[in-house]
Formats: sequence, structure tokens, C-alpha cells
Amino acid sequence: LDKHRAPLYERLIEHRSRRAASFHVPGHKNGATIPQPEGLQALMELDYTEITGLDDLHQPEGVIREAELLAAECYGADRTFFLVQGSTLGNLAMILSVCRPGDLILVDRFVHKSVLNGLMLAHARAVFLTPVWDPLTGYAAGIDMESFRETLHRYPEAKAVMLTRPNYFGYAADLSGIIDEAHRAGLAVLVDEAHGAHFGFHEAVPVPALSLGADAVVQSTHKMLSALTMGAMLHVQGGRIDAGSIARTIRMLQTSSPSYPIMATLDVARRLVHTHGRDLLEQGLAAVRRFVDAMGEMPWYVLPNTLQGSRDDDAARFVASAGQAGDEDLCSRGPNQTNPMARTRTGAVRDPFKQPVRDGTGTLTGYELQELLEQHGCMVEMADPQHVLLVFSPFSSSADSERIVQIFRHIAEQYQLDKKELVPTLTNNNILPLIPASIEPIQFSRHMMNPEEADEVPLALAAGEYSADMLIPYPPGIPFVYPGEQLTEELIHILKLMSGKGARFQGGMDSSLSKVRIVRRRLEAHERMT
Amino acid sequence: LDKHRAPLYERLIEHRSRRAASFHVPGHKNGATIPQPEGLQALMELDYTEITGLDDLHQPEGVIREAELLAAECYGADRTFFLVQGSTLGNLAMILSVCRPGDLILVDRFVHKSVLNGLMLAHARAVFLTPVWDPLTGYAAGIDMESFRETLHRYPEAKAVMLTRPNYFGYAADLSGIIDEAHRAGLAVLVDEAHGAHFGFHEAVPVPALSLGADAVVQSTHKMLSALTMGAMLHVQGGRIDAGSIARTIRMLQTSSPSYPIMATLDVARRLVHTHGRDLLEQGLAAVRRFVDAMGEMPWYVLPNTLQGSRDDDAARFVASAGQAGDEDLCSRGPNQTNPMARTRTGAVRDPFKQPVRDGTGTLTGYELQELLEQHGCMVEMADPQHVLLVFSPFSSSADSERIVQIFRHIAEQYQLDKKELVPTLTNNNILPLIPASIEPIQFSRHMMNPEEADEVPLALAAGEYSADMLIPYPPGIPFVYPGEQLTEELIHILKLMSGKGARFQGGMDSSLSKVRIVRRRLEAHERMT
Repeated sequence: LDKHRAPLYERLIEHRSRRAASFHVPGHKNGATIPQPEGLQALMELDYTEITGLDDLHQPEGVIREAELLAAECYGADRTFFLVQGSTLGNLAMILSVCRPGDLILVDRFVHKSVLNGLMLAHARAVFLTPVWDPLTGYAAGIDMESFRETLHRYPEAKAVMLTRPNYFGYAADLSGIIDEAHRAGLAVLVDEAHGAHFGFHEAVPVPALSLGADAVVQSTHKMLSALTMGAMLHVQGGRIDAGSIARTIRMLQTSSPSYPIMATLDVARRLVHTHGRDLLEQGLAAVRRFVDAMGEMPWYVLPNTLQGSRDDDAARFVASAGQAGDEDLCSRGPNQTNPMARTRTGAVRDPFKQPVRDGTGTLTGYELQELLEQHGCMVEMADPQHVLLVFSPFSSSADSERIVQIFRHIAEQYQLDKKELVPTLTNNNILPLIPASIEPIQFSRHMMNPEEADEVPLALAAGEYSADMLIPYPPGIPFVYPGEQLTEELIHILKLMSGKGARFQGGMDSSLSKVRIVRRRLEAHERMT
Repeated sequence: LDKHRAPLYERLIEHRSRRAASFHVPGHKNGATIPQPEGLQALMELDYTEITGLDDLHQPEGVIREAELLAAECYGADRTFFLVQGSTLGNLAMILSVCRPGDLILVDRFVHKSVLNGLMLAHARAVFLTPVWDPLTGYAAGIDMESFRETLHRYPEAKAVMLTRPNYFGYAADLSGIIDEAHRAGLAVLVDEAHGAHFGFHEAVPVPALSLGADAVVQSTHKMLSALTMGAMLHVQGGRIDAGSIARTIRMLQTSSPSYPIMATLDVARRLVHTHGRDLLEQGLAAVRRFVDAMGEMPWYVLPNTLQGSRDDDAARFVASAGQAGDEDLCSRGPNQTNPMARTRTGAVRDPFKQPVRDGTGTLTGYELQELLEQHGCMVEMADPQHVLLVFSPFSSSADSERIVQIFRHIAEQYQLDKKELVPTLTNNNILPLIPASIEPIQFSRHMMNPEEADEVPLALAAGEYSADMLIPYPPGIPFVYPGEQLTEELIHILKLMSGKGARFQGGMDSSLSKVRIVRRRLEAHERMT
């Protein structure tokens, strides 16, 4: 295996150079025959299909297999699957492979909605794990170890534990303690590491979950590396997960006409990080440092993930409570062959490529900051009531860092932030700690999504009712209300607060959430039907 | 609604012109910062995500909603959903929306594997319908009307009928009689029209299923029009299908990071066919005519779908047996506003853009023809034991037609086909009529794909056993063996025949099908677990 090669991409280029005539789909005939509008022409040129020589993602035996083998080597997996439907597909496939109807799985409370959709499709039962909170951002930042042990003891029939790492703000809990404990109890560990495709390639970023012993890990190669959107990988190692079962489940859910451009960019993104991993990340970290250093001159902005902050005491405390195992070396595997620094179980806790920023004076909400930044041409990843989240990547430029710092400076002057007092802690519209952790298993069912007797009511009148829908502020796409969950006064208050501050909602009647769909019958009615 | 606009594409171009800085995913930062390998740079430029102003496919309220409304108008639907995961997603979503576990659905025997995957995910029961055969190609070409009526009568509890149209060789049965009969019995009609996104825009191609009254229709816009691979649409009309339920099911299965380039090409492909429909198709038909006319000089090649053949007696007979309703006008809807010719229920039966070709002398198999054509730089869609299938599109060029005709001429000379006698009928390795139609309902289950006690045996020793896997020669990706289906001597003989002739198989142990996975327990064992 030659890591300098990108066999799938090279085959596409070679095929193009043959100037073969297309008597096959896609219809655009390599984009050559008709003028496409600007910007689309080039998109077509490598958009082939499963013709002779280009292998078949659903049964890879040629260049796609080679590309997947190289990816497995790069990431230290026993087997890597290319996905063209994002980490969404990876999460669905992991859960559907592990859970038969009624099987119990332990799950992070603050998972991506695709995990919940997987539970519904699988008709699985889930116990949601008690999180620990990151006081610097207010977000869930791992699993409470003590409570995890209790849960393992209480539910010996559990098949697996499904975890999310890092969280949306780049907090990557050291899961090694959790993973070891789960393995001792016979559980497989599945990790949604959608935002961690770059982990392990530089000592400033966290160690990947695969190096911590996870059995199956999904990563969005498009999110932090250079694949096209929808390009992702699912890595499997060890004997706890049946790779054949994963393969069959992926085949059920993935299109029979996968995009070659997406697959080719997976191949090329892997080659780039496989051959230039640390240097590549270093380049992007330079842009991050430029940003962090300049923002340091404006103390009214709080940056929880500053490079310094990633090693601060608070973070360390939370790592400890998330079950960190210590400093011992772990493995000879993982993506870190070229970088001995990262060949340990420890690494940064906060991903410096994720930079949440909040107005420490409490003058501007995250949504307001987002609007002001975007008015000046800096598009951000998301906002919550307090933060705006900037996502850097290995491909970020220092010029862009300077540009956004100037806007932050301009905003500070406009709102005279420098003349205001800093609010010492997070303001109390920090919603997450208000949501109680479930401890009883919830029986998921596909019909949660298709309740036949749902009624529409204004959100304000829904107190005490049970939500028919999953309500998901987006981004980050993490569900706040589950189907079948009771809409308490408290929850409605929080939802109205978010909506009033400009959050958009998926899953409900409309994105401003003026109305919700409720089921008057309890969840149990749905359970009986499965 | 201005059909000359492409609101989503225009917004992407507008966003690019703003030269905004990206502090969001995807990681490649608009492809601007690092040099990509040749051909990939341009792919990145419009690869945005759900940032402000670019709407959200999962809750469309802006430019994506506008683009979907225009598509609905173009195709005569009440609602159109953009899909970025191909017709595969459309088929899964239609079935999962309609079927609860145990619900009965009537299904074409020769459906795309995604339909069967949908049945498994839905835990539906299916009755497979007796097909009629097209004697010109040997493929299924519609549903036997008499047997359909009997099935409706026997299973009054059936919820829907799921049909495929056209078949892979471009035979588009006139389903109006079947649809009327199904509606009278209270069933919804779902149609996999993956290869028919261009239907209705020219009198030489078939009328679309939506115009024939189907309730939900999925079309691969990438297959016959100019969208990127994975771009498809799901159209819904009337009150028999709950569009809200379809929307929720799509949200469960579709990635939370849909590709903007794919969505933009859906928008642009719609604009092109919406504004220049007939002229666009006419352009491609010129290439088809050039091909058909030249091939007419070589009578040793048989072309079942010749432009003349599309109106021949054989075809008409099969249309009649498939329940054609006659010549009456149907509707003021459908994509045909600019083309009064096509505003009826009748149209061509065979899509001239699909051109199966076989060696009428029986000298060369379809696989051998494929190899010879591809050696000379003409890539084809697929081969079966007899045919090679050429797919033209509105974007095919007459130059390519001339090129492939020359190769056919060369092959004829090389094998002296002109000196051989024509075999009057299809040779008897025509496999499809050998497969009996099921008449008892089959309970599908997700665990068909994950049998825990599967054994591997050589194909030759599998007679009498039950297949653990779905065995799918690809292309066309239509299953020949279902999970839980008994591997008879006859079936094994056919599979070996296909494998020996070069067919590739998905779903099994390897693509040459030397081994198969079997379950010794009967299907019923799986049923009990659901």
C-alpha cells in the first residue's frame, strides 16, 4: 500500500483522459455536450458511475477497495467504509447493525438526530446517560463515570454504548475509561466522531476515539478535512462489531448510484492527511493562533477553547470526571505513525479548530453576534443564545482570521463593549443543565415519526402534552425534545426563549416553532404496535 | 413562479460572488486555500452548507423551497422533494411512509433492490405480482391485469402497490389501468420511475406515471437529465399519500449535510427541461436516430427499442395486457404544458433513449459485446447474457453515435456476423421467465440482512438451502434471489450461467458468486423475531 497514491481519484482522471464515449448514466454525459451554467461544468467531469474499471462501492474489489484499505491504514482501522451520505449514514448503520428490535443500548443524551433516527428505525430501547457539563460553554462534555458504572450494573443486557465526541464546540472527552469499562461489561462502543476526522494528526488536537479503543467510529471527512460535503468514513476494529453486518446495513441505506466525486475527494483527503498530516494541521493552526492572539487583546470576548484554555484546570477537572485513564501509551495503531507525540491516550481536550466566542459583557447574544459578523461577510457555523461558533480547519487562512478579528473589533466599538463590565459566569439562559437526564429506558419506534393521531397546537398551549415530533435546533442538529417526550412548562419556556432569540428548528411545524404537533395518547400506544 | 429562474443555484452563485470568509464546515473552505488535484478544485467552489441565506433541505423555507415549488410545477406534482441520495432514498421513503410492520403491499417482482430494502426496514409483508414479459427483450414489462385484479380481491387489506416503470431496458408499461383499478380498491400507487425524469417532455418518450394518476413517483434526475449523480426527486399528488409523513421519513434517512452542488444541479436540470423541454429532448433524439438508422444497415444486430419498434404490434399487445386504458385525454397537469401532443395518457411504450442491442446471430453474448465496445472506448450501461444496453440522454451527441456504430461495424466484420444466420428468437438463456412469481405474502424483516446463523457454502452445494443474502446482478441492480428464498437447482443453474458469462453480483460473498451464505432455519424463524 503506497500512501502517496490515491487509487480511486487516479482512476477517474485516467478514465477522463481516455475520452471514452458515454452510453451510460448519468444523463449529463460527462458534462461535455451542453453548456452548463457557470460553476457547474467542472462538477460534471468526474461524475461517472459504476462502469467497467471504476469498481462498485457496494461490493468494492478494485480501486475503491484499494482506497478504503489505504484509509484503514491511515486511521488504524481493521476496515474502513467510504460513505457518501455523511456521518448520518454511519450512525444509522452502526445502530441498525448492533440493535435488533427491543435491544437495549446506552446513549449520550446530546446525540445528533441521526442517532435517534437510528434508534427509531431499529426499534431499539435506549437508556440515556447522565452527562457532565463543561462550565466554560454550558454544553455536555462527556459521560459521568459513576453514573455510567451504575447504569452498566443496572442493565446487564445492554448491547452497546453510543457516544458523541467531540461535542459541537470541540470538547473531546477522553473516553478511554468509559470504553474500558464498557468492554469489561461486554458492550461494544460506537462513537459518532463526525467532527474528528483530523484527530491524532497533531499534538494540539485530541486523540481519535479509535486509538482509545472504540469498536466503530464514524467521521465526517468533509467537516474538518477536504472531502466534498456528504463524504464520510466508518472505521471498525476488533472483534466486537461484525464488519459484515455493518456492510450489509450500509448497503440497505446507501444509494445504488454513489457519487464518484464525493468518493474521489475521500480518497484525496486521505492522501493529503496521510502524507502531510502534521504539517497540514500546523498550517491551519497558524490561522487559529493568529485569531486567538488578536482576540486576546479584547478581553470582553470570551473564548472557551483558546489554545491555552485547552489545557486549563477546568478542562482537566472535566476530563477526570469523564473517566480519563491517565498518561499511559496505548497502541501502535491509529493515524499517528508519523507523530510519536500523539501516540498516547492523551491529547488536547478541546479542539482548537473549533472556536466558540461569546460576548462576556452579556450585551450581545450569540445570534446577534452571528448576524453582525455575517453582515460583514464572515459566515459562521452556528450560534446559540450565548455563543457564536467559528469552525477553522487545516485549510483556514490567516487572512480570514485577520478579517474576522477586525469585525469583532468593530462590533466592540459599536456596542462599547470595552466600557462594560464582564459578567463573571454564563448567563442563565444556558439551557442544557435544565434538561433532566432520563434514567428509564425509552422504547423507540419508527412510528414515533408517523403518529397517526397528532394534533397541532400553539407551543404556548402544549404544556403537559407529548410531542409527536423531534424538535431540533439547527445547527447543531442535536435534539432537545424527543417524540413521545412530555412538553413541560419548563421545556416550553426554553423553546420559546431559543426561538425568540432566532434559533431555527427542524422537525416541528415550522422553523420558528409557533406550533407543535402533539400526541394525546402516551408513547406506550406506539410501543404496542411494534 | 418564474420557470426561467433557478433560485437555489442563483443563490449559490450570488453567495460565491460575495467572497465571504468561511468559518463553517465543510473543511475545504470553498476549495480556495489549498491547491486541489486537477479536476477537484472546481468541485469545491459551490460546496457550501446550511449557512444563513442558503436555506435547509430538511426544513425548506427559502431558496430550496422555491426550487422545489418550481419542480412541482414542472412535473405537475402537488409537492416535490429534492433528494440527494438518489431514487434509493425515494423508494425507502415511500415504503416506510406507507407501511407499518406487518402491513401488506403489492409489489413488482423485478424491483430495484432499494424497494426490497424498504420492505425489510418497514417489516412489511409483500405479495409479488405476476409480470407480463416483453418478448423482444425477455424482461418483465408490466403487470398482468387479470392476475392483478385477483390479487386485489384476495388481499383487500393491502395498503399500496409499488411499481417500477420503465424497466431497465426502457419499456414503460402504460399503468393507467392498473392505477385506476388500485385506486378503486383504495390502494395508493407508488412508482419507481428512476429512469423516467425526462418522460412527458416529447411525444417520442412515454407519458410520466404522475400523469397516469400515480400518487407518489420517484425519478432520478441524474440518470436521464443533467443533475449530478445522487440527485433525484420525489413527487406526490392527491390525498392518498400523506406528504408530511413522506417528509418525516426522508428526514430520518437523508444526511443532515446534503450536498449543495447536487441540489443546485437539480434546480438547474429542472430549469433546463422546464424551459426547453421538447427542444432539449429533440437534440438527444437526433443522436438516437443517427444510431438507429445506421444500425439498420446491419440487420444481424437486433434493436428491440428502435424508434419504429416503439410503436410495433408486439409492443401494443403488451401494453394491452398491461391494462392500457386507451387514447383518452387525461389531465391538464404533468410536465407537458408546452407540448399538447403528450397531454394524453398515451405515449411511446419504449423509451428510445434506451437502446438494448443484441447479436441476432447468437455469436456474441451481451458481456462479450460490452467488452469489445469498451475496448474501443465506448462505455455502456450494462450487459446481460444477450444484450448490451446503451443509454442515450438529451445530451448525447451524434458524433458519439457515429463512433459506436463504427465499432459495431468493426465487430461484425471481425466475427463475420454478416455471414451467419439470424437466430429467430431469444436464445434460451433468457433467465427471467424461469423464475416463478410468488403468490403467497412474504414477511420481510430487517434481520433478513443480518442472519446470525448464516453458513458459507459453495454455490454448487447450496441446492435446497435458503439464501441468507439478496443476490443482485449489477447492473441493473434488480434482485434475482431474496433473503429467505430457497435456492433451487434451477436457480443455481441460472446464477452459475450468469456468473460464467461475466455478470457481477452484489449482496453475496463475492462478485463472482463462488460461495453463498445460507440460513438453515426457515424464514419463519426470522418472522417470529420481529
